[in-house]
Amino acid sequence: MNKKIDHIGIAVKDLQKGIENYEKILGLKCSGTEEVSEQKVRIAMIPIQDTKIELLEPMQDDSPVAKFIENKGEGFHHIAIQVENIEEELERLKDAGIRLIDEKYRIGAHGAKIAFIHPKSMGGLLVELVQRD
Amino acid sequence: MNKKIDHIGIAVKDLQKGIENYEKILGLKCSGTEEVSEQKVRIAMIPIQDTKIELLEPMQDDSPVAKFIENKGEGFHHIAIQVENIEEELERLKDAGIRLIDEKYRIGAHGAKIAFIHPKSMGGLLVELVQRD
Repeated sequence: MNKKIDHIGIAVKDLQKGIENYEKILGLKCSGTEEVSEQKVRIAMIPIQDTKIELLEPMQDDSPVAKFIENKGEGFHHIAIQVENIEEELERLKDAGIRLIDEKYRIGAHGAKIAFIHPKSMGGLLVELVQRD
Repeated sequence: MNKKIDHIGIAVKDLQKGIENYEKILGLKCSGTEEVSEQKVRIAMIPIQDTKIELLEPMQDDSPVAKFIENKGEGFHHIAIQVENIEEELERLKDAGIRLIDEKYRIGAHGAKIAFIHPKSMGGLLVELVQRD
């Protein structure tokens, strides 16, 4: 299967400061921001080659990303891998006994089908599967 | 400047178990392993599209990656960005007052010129600059 990194999610306390770091230090360019109210985060997209870095700023103290920053600090949050058929992937993983956060996909930003694999299955790494149609 | 993600470094306790996770769960394929004795790590390269995931297993208890796992647990360790001229980049960053781990590049695996930016400058993210000639 032809897989690619859809994006790399990075938790930041302050989105503007985060964007400034990636632009000033790494010479990248933010392509836009949006709010994902379901996840209570504001997101900045920073394209790099044919993937992107997504900065995630919590909008409220009870946002999952706020809790993440409280426990682990700012920094890497998750990596998202594009798959062609997320339902097939989730079936395959369940059959293999892999622990999942989402046994069924849900709808994320821009209508993408998304599901998270439990970090316990992936040596501490939070992995999101994404199907974009 | 045309930048790309050279690799994403992920700390694991057990390289074989790590490779198995990425192959079995994500359907990726390890392309090889090597030892980087200077950093006291064994590395597994897992290509994905035109970048790669690098799993890092400490070879000794005093390896920087061993200390990282002890403090933070397994998981994301660093992201490496390819640059065209690392000396120019380091000069630019020093002039901008950015805190660096390496003020001059050093030689990493396969003769690449590498230098790390301090995570304090990048919201907790450890970023490696890499120049491959």
